[in-house]
Amino acid sequence: MDLFSTSLSMPEWETLIHRAEVGDVNEALENIDRSKGTEFDVIFIGGGAGGRFGSAYSKARGLRQLVVDKWPFLGGSCPHQACVPHHLFSEAAREMDYMRWNSDTLWFTKFEEERASIVDLIDLFKRGRNNPHAFMNWQSKEQLDMEYILNAEAIVIDKNTVEVNGERFTTKNIVLGTGSSTFVPPEIKGLDKAGVYDYATLIDPGLDYEPTSCVIIGGSKVAMEYGSFYQATGCHTTILTRSPLMRTKSLHHIDEDLRRYVVDNMRLRGMDIIEGCEPLEVVGEERATGVRVRLADGTETIIETDFVFLGTGERPHTQPFVDALGIDVDEKGFVKVNARMQTSIPGIYAIGDLIGAPMEMFKARKCGMTAARNIAGEPFEFDFSEYPDFLHTTYEVTWVGLTEDEAREQYEDITVIQMPPKGMPNGDIALPVSEGTMLYAFTRPELSGFQKCIYDNHSRRLLGAHHVGMGAKDAFQYLDFLIKKGITIDEMGEMNELFINPEHFIQLSRLRAGHQNLVDL
Amino acid sequence: MDLFSTSLSMPEWETLIHRAEVGDVNEALENIDRSKGTEFDVIFIGGGAGGRFGSAYSKARGLRQLVVDKWPFLGGSCPHQACVPHHLFSEAAREMDYMRWNSDTLWFTKFEEERASIVDLIDLFKRGRNNPHAFMNWQSKEQLDMEYILNAEAIVIDKNTVEVNGERFTTKNIVLGTGSSTFVPPEIKGLDKAGVYDYATLIDPGLDYEPTSCVIIGGSKVAMEYGSFYQATGCHTTILTRSPLMRTKSLHHIDEDLRRYVVDNMRLRGMDIIEGCEPLEVVGEERATGVRVRLADGTETIIETDFVFLGTGERPHTQPFVDALGIDVDEKGFVKVNARMQTSIPGIYAIGDLIGAPMEMFKARKCGMTAARNIAGEPFEFDFSEYPDFLHTTYEVTWVGLTEDEAREQYEDITVIQMPPKGMPNGDIALPVSEGTMLYAFTRPELSGFQKCIYDNHSRRLLGAHHVGMGAKDAFQYLDFLIKKGITIDEMGEMNELFINPEHFIQLSRLRAGHQNLVDL
Repeated sequence: MDLFSTSLSMPEWETLIHRAEVGDVNEALENIDRSKGTEFDVIFIGGGAGGRFGSAYSKARGLRQLVVDKWPFLGGSCPHQACVPHHLFSEAAREMDYMRWNSDTLWFTKFEEERASIVDLIDLFKRGRNNPHAFMNWQSKEQLDMEYILNAEAIVIDKNTVEVNGERFTTKNIVLGTGSSTFVPPEIKGLDKAGVYDYATLIDPGLDYEPTSCVIIGGSKVAMEYGSFYQATGCHTTILTRSPLMRTKSLHHIDEDLRRYVVDNMRLRGMDIIEGCEPLEVVGEERATGVRVRLADGTETIIETDFVFLGTGERPHTQPFVDALGIDVDEKGFVKVNARMQTSIPGIYAIGDLIGAPMEMFKARKCGMTAARNIAGEPFEFDFSEYPDFLHTTYEVTWVGLTEDEAREQYEDITVIQMPPKGMPNGDIALPVSEGTMLYAFTRPELSGFQKCIYDNHSRRLLGAHHVGMGAKDAFQYLDFLIKKGITIDEMGEMNELFINPEHFIQLSRLRAGHQNLVDL
Repeated sequence: MDLFSTSLSMPEWETLIHRAEVGDVNEALENIDRSKGTEFDVIFIGGGAGGRFGSAYSKARGLRQLVVDKWPFLGGSCPHQACVPHHLFSEAAREMDYMRWNSDTLWFTKFEEERASIVDLIDLFKRGRNNPHAFMNWQSKEQLDMEYILNAEAIVIDKNTVEVNGERFTTKNIVLGTGSSTFVPPEIKGLDKAGVYDYATLIDPGLDYEPTSCVIIGGSKVAMEYGSFYQATGCHTTILTRSPLMRTKSLHHIDEDLRRYVVDNMRLRGMDIIEGCEPLEVVGEERATGVRVRLADGTETIIETDFVFLGTGERPHTQPFVDALGIDVDEKGFVKVNARMQTSIPGIYAIGDLIGAPMEMFKARKCGMTAARNIAGEPFEFDFSEYPDFLHTTYEVTWVGLTEDEAREQYEDITVIQMPPKGMPNGDIALPVSEGTMLYAFTRPELSGFQKCIYDNHSRRLLGAHHVGMGAKDAFQYLDFLIKKGITIDEMGEMNELFINPEHFIQLSRLRAGHQNLVDL
């Protein structure tokens, strides 16, 4: 279907995507300027976050680009099966949590657990997701002037040739960005049974029954986020994890006080978190009925459940590219790239989840931008070794920079500013607090959150910031930038806070900035 | 009561403050190091935000300070009657709004309007407010080493003498920070009737009946915030305002698109907003039964109500200081100060709401810091002509820097990046969205918010940012700093976003940053 000379409205795009998804439209959706032929400066394989942002940047820099995706929309897995449903579910978890704690008080009616359906939320998401899909297609065409082919598989023939729909396109460069999917640990038996899901299969084909309990295998962010949601709906959830939660290699800079607050609060909501264990097998005939696990003390037990969920990390699908191009990959299959996103083969780039952790949006998008800039002749390097991070439980948990322990190791003399203050019981103080935690503060102060920031006393520079609560996530993007620029406690103290700010760092810093020799607060 | 050599716990402070409030403890609460005599470098009259932060800074700089407050706690009106209850009420408004739109769907039971009680929320606040009060006293003593006298009036005798409780204290400097209270317009009759409240009397003595409707006189932030809350509880609210909402002198940099989104959404929730009118009189025998108002077309009408609320701005109480010290004040009574917070009398400073708008926390606290630094011999100026700002409706509304119109006037060539894109109906797109607006996005996309940022094409610098939604407030503090530092679209585009970020400025900027000549998005 040639869409190049038409301009679809948002509702028209939504309809078209829907028809493609249900199999009414099987042909490719093409937005190609045929008057320019079939030769490109760069072809992006995969139109997820990285491919789309790389395409936009390529186009802005005057390159002719093409992006190809097997799905009928650009934007990739995030708005289809990953970050967007996760945010919807995490928001639901937070709302349900508020409604449970305040059940039958104030304006809250009695919380009706039988109404809190996981399946309903999945359905709500699936009914709505074509709107963001439509927007990606609309924006990419109408505002960003990209060329694309959707609803069609791209086959890499060689380093200058890509075949789509039987047609061959030539290109000077190829950028691989086909993402990853859940790692299915081969040593755990029975993961192919009915009743075993990951974040993607939860949505497509989709959970089609209301589970009575959940056992999560793995202790990743996904485990914590989806687990907190299931628990909030009343589906009792057990997390089986080898490493202590938030002490996995994939998460860096986790402050121990923050970790304790987060994990304690998950347990307080009724979750079982079994650390140091080894899940062995999903038991049951055709359907899962439980998980056999070896506990930390070496004994084995079966935890009964009708819903097993995998939070075991991600693996890429790189074999077709290895076969076609001979690019180097690591032992897990992730493509090896340098800081310019260049693979071992000149002219071939790889971006996003395909090159490994962190599997985060900023990385995917900036990988795309980095590849585009280098292809356009600008030597540009992207170092994603240090970045701000977050996860959800029923809270937003955000962090950037050094933990207190890391700072103590690396600096002679540091100052820690935190709330509640060290040594004060959480329940004694209704702080920190702001939009999203006010009602916790006034009903159960111990639930209102935790925060900490750390300064180097010598340079007076901010080293790290850590927050549990609501509403600080957006700020941590800028705190990351400011930490890298060397922001000091004096500059922080002279900023203009918007009270009641979710993290109270500006004013708390001001309370100490007057000191020549900094002291804790 | 001499507290200097004791160390009260948080619960002990809460109890003591409670006893003082109910009249069980009438004596002054003293935390003074008597071994050092009664001579101070600076005495702060009023222990609100400005006095407390000024005291902390003075102490940090090695000055001997004393702060005196008539209330039995430090922190002033904010945690007692102003910003903290406002935030609790605004959070309740947001939650009720969510529960109304989703009533009897998903996990939401039918919204029971009869449960949504304004009086209950006031009671909840009053039961809890002594916790933050206690913390201010605890922190100021145990962590900040301030000296203070609470539960006692300070009388300024002359520029070097303050009397408290019959005792005279001498000082080199005095900092006045006694705040302001609601302006009662003398031309409106009947404002002394029962049933007429402002934000302070709403709390103390407190609204003691459940009103059936509300008429708000004035169009200030307070009017919009409290009005949105009353409306959310089911108390139908009418705002009577001379200027269009958000087009008052006291609010600067209000983007017209943002304003329209905000006001349209207040009306969509059922509020009546009558602009261009002149409230004349609260009618009724002893109790208010209505408000007589002259409408924009010159006709008069009476709007019936059992609850009148004043959102008419603030006036300071400066007469005692004029009488004692002869300081200059303006025609409204606000103390005139220079950028160092110095009044017309050497050694006398004034800070916070007492010196006029903006009546915001950052200004009060930084005024205190500014006075302290100058008293300590450091010439320091505080310019609060430009600052980030916010208000609540059922949304958080935040803005900083120039509006689109202002930017067009001041710069030759600008780029506007906004969501929804110009010309696209709000209902066509479920963006912007993030924590706090996910459910709007998936049920009623037109409610999910609005955002805009503006760049100068020549310098590529960020000029302004505007947001309606949830969760962006914290970030706007740092955006204010970054705008002043001259942040460019290129630097924005290279930041690390935490997806789904409430404002999508980083990634949207990245989509355009590749262009040598910037274009709208």
